[in-house]
Amino acid sequence: MNIGHKRWIVADGYIPAGSTGSGRELVSHDALCILNCGHRDARIELKLYFSDRKPAGPYRFTVEAERTRHLRFNDFADPEPVPHNTDYASVIDADVPVIVQHTRLDSRQPALALMTTIAYPA
Amino acid sequence: MNIGHKRWIVADGYIPAGSTGSGRELVSHDALCILNCGHRDARIELKLYFSDRKPAGPYRFTVEAERTRHLRFNDFADPEPVPHNTDYASVIDADVPVIVQHTRLDSRQPALALMTTIAYPA
Amino acid sequence: MNIGHKRWIVADGYIPAGSTGSGRELVSHDALCILNCGHRDARIELKLYFSDRKPAGPYRFTVEAERTRHLRFNDFADPEPVPHNTDYASVIDADVPVIVQHTRLDSRQPALALMTTIAYPA
Amino acid sequence: MNIGHKRWIVADGYIPAGSTGSGRELVSHDALCILNCGHRDARIELKLYFSDRKPAGPYRFTVEAERTRHLRFNDFADPEPVPHNTDYASVIDADVPVIVQHTRLDSRQPALALMTTIAYPA
Repeated sequence: MNIGHKRWIVADGYIPAGSTGSGRELVSHDALCILNCGHRDARIELKLYFSDRKPAGPYRFTVEAERTRHLRFNDFADPEPVPHNTDYASVIDADVPVIVQHTRLDSRQPALALMTTIAYPA
Repeated sequence: MNIGHKRWIVADGYIPAGSTGSGRELVSHDALCILNCGHRDARIELKLYFSDRKPAGPYRFTVEAERTRHLRFNDFADPEPVPHNTDYASVIDADVPVIVQHTRLDSRQPALALMTTIAYPA
Repeated sequence: MNIGHKRWIVADGYIPAGSTGSGRELVSHDALCILNCGHRDARIELKLYFSDRKPAGPYRFTVEAERTRHLRFNDFADPEPVPHNTDYASVIDADVPVIVQHTRLDSRQPALALMTTIAYPA
Repeated sequence: MNIGHKRWIVADGYIPAGSTGSGRELVSHDALCILNCGHRDARIELKLYFSDRKPAGPYRFTVEAERTRHLRFNDFADPEPVPHNTDYASVIDADVPVIVQHTRLDSRQPALALMTTIAYPA
């Protein structure tokens, strides 16, 4: 199955600066959930846009064939970490079709909040 | 009315491991809400993708003509249960057009969180 | 401006049975937000689907030209009220193009939860 | 990269009247997150629709080339502020393609709620 698009956009990027609760599961995070249904590994390039500076990236990673990866912007380090408490947006480019869903968990206050949307396929 | 698509994708699958509150209504869950507006029953096949193992499935179920079913991944048992606290993604295939919406309720902390999105029609 | 579609679907309908907080604003509800950008009033017909009974409706209402209406399923009474704590789905038919967004507020536990998605345009 | 659409709609507009927590980050707000991937600044015009009065606007602002702006309806002042605790909807027109995501943070009760959706591209 070769399903999806090669380019996706998430316009609302934001990593909440702070968390309540314990464990990696409850840490506030902004995430890309990428599914590669196909039989070839997907090489992904991510570019980040900000309100007051030049774009950052590319961030590069692979989503293997017939696998999903749920990637936290919090974890990206190369070429530079993603600042917290800062507005950004992202463009995801893949060399094969994939599907992208954007999810945020915010546990700054003592009961977490969630939001999700299928990203915009361009 | 024959409305929708025969294939849908949800890239962010996750069953929170734990709940607060009482009753089935408040149990943390990840759900597919499927509407079959047509006059023929819809036979559905679901395939699950993971980050580090081969896909699971197919999970099979029926959504009767002119009915909706809100199915929890928590309840799927055959061919195997869906692990909690584990990233996954799903591809939904129907033999007639249906509409799919993805919703999660997370009550790990003592005030539930919700998220929803229309799934990606492929 | 004549923008949108004449048919929209929301597959996840659910009115949480219970609320915390005071005032209509904080009552748990499931809502359709409909925008009519055009210069003609929109006559809307709504049909509800359930898991274990025949569809209900049509529910009829008007969204005036160049107006928005945020309608709660909780408030629908004719031809019959919408049951709480019950899974349903809805098909919205308009005689002119409109835009529909689905939003739920759930205040069963003492800190409200929100979810939203643009409905599925058919 | 010239990505997106020139017109977007958000049917569910609402600024919660009240907040808990401290700091601008936790103030209840309704926001448009706009990404301009292109090499020309985007001039944006926003028109607001209400349930019981004529539309308001245009609100005008710019999203610079290769930048994102996360704009709160709370902050709009010209030609008039956006009322709180009031249903509205918005149509966003840009002179170059952009991508729009709609997000609300609601901290009326003492644990914030979030919701998001990619806006409707018209």
